[in-house]
Amino acid sequence: MFRALLISAILMRAWAAPLPLMPEPARVAVTGGSLSIGAGFRAGIEGYSDARLQAAVARFLTRIERQTGVPQLPGKGVTLRVNCQGRGSEDPVLGEDESYRLEVTPAAALLKANTVTGALRGLETFAQLIVPGPHGFQVPTVQIEDYPRFPWRGLMLDAARHWMPVPVVERNLDAMAAVKLNVFHWHLSDDQGFRVESKRYPRLQQNGSDGHFYTQAEVREVVGYARDRGIRVIPEFDMPGHTTAWFGGYPELASAPGPYSIERRWGIFEPVMDPTREETYAFLDGLLGEMAALFPDRYFHIGGDEVKDLQWKKSQPIQAFARAHGLAESRDLEAYFTRRVQKLLKKHDKTMIGWDEVMEPGLEADAVIQSWRGQASLADAARKGYRSLLSFGYYLDHLKPASAQYAVDPRDSDAGSLTPEQAARILGGEACMWSEYVSAETVDSRIWPRLAAIAERFWSPREVSDPDSMYERMEAVSRSLEWTGITHRSSAAPMLDRLTGGRSARPLEVLAEASEALGIEGRRGARRYSSLVPLNRFVDAVQPESELARRLERAVDRVTSDPAAAAELRGKLAEWAENEIGVRSLADGNALLAELIPLAHNLSAMARMGLGALDVLEKHQPAAPGWVAQQSKELEELDQPVAEVRLAAARPVRRLLASVARRAAEIRLQPLETARVRCGNEPRCNGTTTVVNWTYGSVQANMTLENNALGGQSGLH
Amino acid sequence: MFRALLISAILMRAWAAPLPLMPEPARVAVTGGSLSIGAGFRAGIEGYSDARLQAAVARFLTRIERQTGVPQLPGKGVTLRVNCQGRGSEDPVLGEDESYRLEVTPAAALLKANTVTGALRGLETFAQLIVPGPHGFQVPTVQIEDYPRFPWRGLMLDAARHWMPVPVVERNLDAMAAVKLNVFHWHLSDDQGFRVESKRYPRLQQNGSDGHFYTQAEVREVVGYARDRGIRVIPEFDMPGHTTAWFGGYPELASAPGPYSIERRWGIFEPVMDPTREETYAFLDGLLGEMAALFPDRYFHIGGDEVKDLQWKKSQPIQAFARAHGLAESRDLEAYFTRRVQKLLKKHDKTMIGWDEVMEPGLEADAVIQSWRGQASLADAARKGYRSLLSFGYYLDHLKPASAQYAVDPRDSDAGSLTPEQAARILGGEACMWSEYVSAETVDSRIWPRLAAIAERFWSPREVSDPDSMYERMEAVSRSLEWTGITHRSSAAPMLDRLTGGRSARPLEVLAEASEALGIEGRRGARRYSSLVPLNRFVDAVQPESELARRLERAVDRVTSDPAAAAELRGKLAEWAENEIGVRSLADGNALLAELIPLAHNLSAMARMGLGALDVLEKHQPAAPGWVAQQSKELEELDQPVAEVRLAAARPVRRLLASVARRAAEIRLQPLETARVRCGNEPRCNGTTTVVNWTYGSVQANMTLENNALGGQSGLH
Repeated sequence: MFRALLISAILMRAWAAPLPLMPEPARVAVTGGSLSIGAGFRAGIEGYSDARLQAAVARFLTRIERQTGVPQLPGKGVTLRVNCQGRGSEDPVLGEDESYRLEVTPAAALLKANTVTGALRGLETFAQLIVPGPHGFQVPTVQIEDYPRFPWRGLMLDAARHWMPVPVVERNLDAMAAVKLNVFHWHLSDDQGFRVESKRYPRLQQNGSDGHFYTQAEVREVVGYARDRGIRVIPEFDMPGHTTAWFGGYPELASAPGPYSIERRWGIFEPVMDPTREETYAFLDGLLGEMAALFPDRYFHIGGDEVKDLQWKKSQPIQAFARAHGLAESRDLEAYFTRRVQKLLKKHDKTMIGWDEVMEPGLEADAVIQSWRGQASLADAARKGYRSLLSFGYYLDHLKPASAQYAVDPRDSDAGSLTPEQAARILGGEACMWSEYVSAETVDSRIWPRLAAIAERFWSPREVSDPDSMYERMEAVSRSLEWTGITHRSSAAPMLDRLTGGRSARPLEVLAEASEALGIEGRRGARRYSSLVPLNRFVDAVQPESELARRLERAVDRVTSDPAAAAELRGKLAEWAENEIGVRSLADGNALLAELIPLAHNLSAMARMGLGALDVLEKHQPAAPGWVAQQSKELEELDQPVAEVRLAAARPVRRLLASVARRAAEIRLQPLETARVRCGNEPRCNGTTTVVNWTYGSVQANMTLENNALGGQSGLH
Repeated sequence: MFRALLISAILMRAWAAPLPLMPEPARVAVTGGSLSIGAGFRAGIEGYSDARLQAAVARFLTRIERQTGVPQLPGKGVTLRVNCQGRGSEDPVLGEDESYRLEVTPAAALLKANTVTGALRGLETFAQLIVPGPHGFQVPTVQIEDYPRFPWRGLMLDAARHWMPVPVVERNLDAMAAVKLNVFHWHLSDDQGFRVESKRYPRLQQNGSDGHFYTQAEVREVVGYARDRGIRVIPEFDMPGHTTAWFGGYPELASAPGPYSIERRWGIFEPVMDPTREETYAFLDGLLGEMAALFPDRYFHIGGDEVKDLQWKKSQPIQAFARAHGLAESRDLEAYFTRRVQKLLKKHDKTMIGWDEVMEPGLEADAVIQSWRGQASLADAARKGYRSLLSFGYYLDHLKPASAQYAVDPRDSDAGSLTPEQAARILGGEACMWSEYVSAETVDSRIWPRLAAIAERFWSPREVSDPDSMYERMEAVSRSLEWTGITHRSSAAPMLDRLTGGRSARPLEVLAEASEALGIEGRRGARRYSSLVPLNRFVDAVQPESELARRLERAVDRVTSDPAAAAELRGKLAEWAENEIGVRSLADGNALLAELIPLAHNLSAMARMGLGALDVLEKHQPAAPGWVAQQSKELEELDQPVAEVRLAAARPVRRLLASVARRAAEIRLQPLETARVRCGNEPRCNGTTTVVNWTYGSVQANMTLENNALGGQSGLH
């Protein structure tokens, strides 16, 4: 019913003041007033009500109390009315109605939804809207109509490589709900661990988990916890590869004789299930039946990725079986296995999902393909009639900037050539948090706040794509997410404190906020990592993306017009310049900090370079000839990864040098004259820039037209 | 058995390197090596074992894992052997043996104790010893013999004025155990709330708690949680005053007709129990009986403080009763009440504790007096034959510096005139956390880390009293306490984030770390506080004592000799000087931040003053005549409370000015000449200072003898 409003929604968005909402709703109109959130704030249910909705409203009130610090003591009156048409489905299901309308006036707020799940989504929007203002905490008066673009919006969490205890899972479910994600894909087994209690085959967890597994009661608790938040839980038992941990208890499942034990290293390993023995399928029938009863969702993930065929090639019986059944290549053998497992799942009333390797001839049409190897296979699946999910581009363990993930769209590139019917088979996507380089302590900081940007990609209209707006809102949402219980911001300080042995960690904090942790590609070769290597070093406390560096980059653009920006920039550069001495002092006799000395040196050197550039800019004088080129060369030498982190500080310094270069290229003119000039080595410049630079008495300003678009700045000095 | 070693302990302490231990053990010998704490670290129980000890060792290993980030995976071998002679008492009791010995060698560690409680204390010592070193996390090789000075070492927490949920209580019990406190005094009722479920008189919690009360199951859980950590739980039901919340459900207990409802304001109120009606005692008999069964400890607190007699004076029947019973004054009536309640408690097999007002003629000799009004009453109680506890001087809600509380000793002043037998009646003390100005969110930061200093006062030998050593160790212990789960350090950042509405709170963090929150005396008149006023402002996120200001004060003393100290000092002063602009920007249109603008202004002004002084010091030039006096005058004007905080930053700036003054008073001499001079307005100087100031070529140094003690510094420039 809300779809007809989409076009006007796009128009409305341009008018609206930026609200701290993520994902951005389909349609927002801001009406200029505010509703106060004080100790008298109440919420009440009208229309349909049930235990799930009541629990959601109670949680919402507790969250408001935490988020504002305003105590919610018992009282009368209702400020927020929650009007729900009906229950919707009992458990969250694919494609349910998640739409809602939210109207806030200066006196009260009304949330309307067709289903309880829709109401849940609207409550999260309301919570994000609360900001401090002229009269204390308040919500702007708005009219919002909202619904998701894709029905499948997920996070995959790998609980196998590093153990993720139930509280870690639950707090991430709360944060997922806050950004309207609706699928939790739980990667429960891999070479490094089998993480669910099987009562039927108990040696799976006994020999395969180091004692770190979810009991069946805990699984039921988590599933219920997710359901209460409108989130489906999809279990994944990866097979026939990535199964070493299974074979510790049941070596007969493998394609080569054991014994096997839990794999401690990272990578792709040889142990793989024997797809030729009927006993394998009997075992899987038992296990899948047991697990199917534990996980109520219709969909069930069997992995299917990265199968090494070495054990198959070496096995005479397996090769004989393959010949007898006309399975010429290993991929045929794998496809045979997949079809057999798909049949078992169907028997247990489940629909199979697999990583894109499972898409082989013979796969039944109801399978869902999860694409991790590239966007092409997503479209390929849709053309072949399969429903599909995009994960390629959303791998959180690569620690890419949020903007890179935000730019990936499930309906991009190859999807453009799909018919509408084919395109509709693309259900959405899932971000993936593989856990080689994250632990229970660090995982939140690798998921959040970047997952909020991906969540917006899945929920909001396609046209919502401006990265500057995304970053501005993400900074706010990153902070409001704190109140869901995740530790993405708070985990760093104790980790840095730990490294100092009781002294102030401020020099490490300064270094950390100027740094960015490398992702899996930068870490896997850095040392002999395994599950036995602690993730307790500086890199593990550093964020994937530096909020400070981004803010300082923006400050560079305002350095001559905004005294606060200039002050922050100079202050931070001065702090960085002096920081090396503090890091050296802490690192003395400390094996965990010694690796940071060159990093701290590089930061201080960069900062001195930036201070030099700032001096030039603030004095409105050109730099010495060749100075920028020389400094830029030195900057690139300093901008090398050290101790598995890189210095995000290089970006604002680079931008300062570019500003100096641009200044050098500017031509001083009388008022209102213009000139076309070539710009320097500024990243965003393609070679032609129009600068309007004028002086009038003591007033000086410049405007710059870059690439024929008004991209410049003006300032009064 | 360890007592004989006390004298040598004092000698040993002088030799030992400062270890991050708090409380400092009775005897420590450091032997110069280290034991590595890696993934192979194990702990094993030998000798006596039971469920309580096993749970303690499991918790210990989990803590080590959190504290170091080193995963503890299953394996063989034992690094720490825990050798316990026997169980000790089943529940922790007053006076039980808490002694232990800990020996750490480069290969292994051995913890010996007579009781499980002693072993618990030793495990905490081991955990505090873990520091990062040349080979990663390690424990120095030590020999420790340790036992407490006082048998009663407590924390009182007021759960009535602000509600303290079970997790808040439990995490504070963990932190208490970490600093070897052994009594949790739970203030469970007051005018603002009755916080325990009574099945016998359910209207107590129904009408008296806003729904915020501990169920009996929760009380049992907390008592068990405390027992597992060697902590006794003493309930307090404050009577006959401080009882308004009781009267909402049972107005007939009061001395004047109702109706009554929960008091929202702070202060001392008129409603008070009727001590003349037998029905009052019948009710108390029932309630105390029910509560006595819930709390296993022998001791039971009935409050007895701050009784207003207005209702009594106005009541004809009460006055008639008083005359009939020869109770001439209100204090006699109160004493009558106390004696009756003491009898009821005795019937339920409990020993009464009361605040010092209960010490009136007729009080039976087994009562314990808790002194809150002064140290004199402590000695007075001991002379009269009562056992007693000191709380005067340990009121955490005053937010005094740790050094002030550390200087208070239960056996000081009047106690000096006691006979040994009388002195032995002083059992120890309790720190008190009254909760008018703390909530569940802020309470940890008002208790910790300062309670560690008080815990040391109660545990360590009397001679352990150097505040510099205390502060150095407290900074380390403050950080290691993070791993117990308390939020004293982590709670501030989200509270500041909350105030900004999604923008970076860095300017507020800078202001906060230079500030100190005022205690109850500075807050109660600042606005119309009540339980309905949110504790969500800047002051609530600010620590009671600024670690940074203390560090910078020390840096002032080293400014000409230690480049790292000089760099930090200059960096911080520069950051403060520029910070006002950032606070102003955040405060624009934000009602919660507007009050901070004058504070931020004062900080920036002080910082510019400090930078001026630093320039003088670093240039080795004297200041202009009168400059120090003028600056000092301006500093005092800036050093005024604003928004219920004061600027700790004033202290290092004051110290810088004093250094400039001293510099001005120094006389340049040839090598090895000396002179007696008058020093300037330096705080610690009583007027005579001997300065030895010499130059030799480019080498210059000075040594200062202040007040005939070597208190000076030397430096090579």
